[in-house]
Amino acid sequence: MKKFEEKTIHTETIYDGKVVKLQVDDVRLPDGNTSKRELIKHAGAVGIIPITKDNKIVFVEQYRKPLEKSLVEIPAGKLEDGEEPEMTVLRELEEETGYAASSPTFVTSFYTSPGFADEIMYLYMAEDVEPIENPAAGDDDEFIELLELTLEEAKQCMKEQRIHDAKTNYAIMYLESLERM
Amino acid sequence: MKKFEEKTIHTETIYDGKVVKLQVDDVRLPDGNTSKRELIKHAGAVGIIPITKDNKIVFVEQYRKPLEKSLVEIPAGKLEDGEEPEMTVLRELEEETGYAASSPTFVTSFYTSPGFADEIMYLYMAEDVEPIENPAAGDDDEFIELLELTLEEAKQCMKEQRIHDAKTNYAIMYLESLERM
Repeated sequence: MKKFEEKTIHTETIYDGKVVKLQVDDVRLPDGNTSKRELIKHAGAVGIIPITKDNKIVFVEQYRKPLEKSLVEIPAGKLEDGEEPEMTVLRELEEETGYAASSPTFVTSFYTSPGFADEIMYLYMAEDVEPIENPAAGDDDEFIELLELTLEEAKQCMKEQRIHDAKTNYAIMYLESLERM
Repeated sequence: MKKFEEKTIHTETIYDGKVVKLQVDDVRLPDGNTSKRELIKHAGAVGIIPITKDNKIVFVEQYRKPLEKSLVEIPAGKLEDGEEPEMTVLRELEEETGYAASSPTFVTSFYTSPGFADEIMYLYMAEDVEPIENPAAGDDDEFIELLELTLEEAKQCMKEQRIHDAKTNYAIMYLESLERM
């Protein structure tokens, strides 16, 4: 759908980094006027809901520099060049948690912040995850602590805002909806 | 919680725009090494789930330049300087839809993309919204079409990915959860 399309008149790359690219576009609006749009380009990401055989959810706690605090989140990671989301799921799950999933199932996808960013989040669930003997290491600059929580414990974390991000809040409501069925 | 805190050694503002500010920080990691963090600063936003007296949900369709397509979303908007989220809800609902809400109720809040952005989304529900006779106009560069949909129609839009963003997907699952209670 291209309703109310905004045609690009001029585009300028302000910054091209490791995680984000910032671009400022001059656009022609539907009424003929012009405006500026600040656009964050991002490779996209996956989030994984890993469930152990004893029905615990595996979370990771890590420091989030933009917030200057740590959050408890489902494991997640950025798509590498040319990587299919399902590959990213297996890779990030191993690197961040040391767990392996046999066949992750797709839950949903959503743009995290379509007003200024093109980041899309693919959400998967991985049941019966199992520890890997010698898991691949993650990034050098990632410091992560694992937590295995019941759904009730996770809901408590959400109340305390230790869990407080879109993909993880969504994951918890999704797991609740499964319980109700 | 400051677990695995990353201390800022140096911070540089790359761009300070209307919607986003891009900052690149050099940080000291917990192991003593250093790394770079790309941080998007954002004022925060609200999303509103407006329900009419005849039980329709009010959505807005608009062009999202970062995606180069239009999306159907719940009404939303950025917090203005010093504005309480509940004020933003009433203002944005009026500007984007021409509807008024008497007392919006808080649903949840979440960081949209804590890996690189500090944007927080406050989600509210507004029941029994009513049309305003002379609503305040929105931004000059916003072109918006209203849609009033039943929950079933909204779920169909989600299947077709015309609805495809974190706050709106969350809103729909939330409304579904209320129906199940």
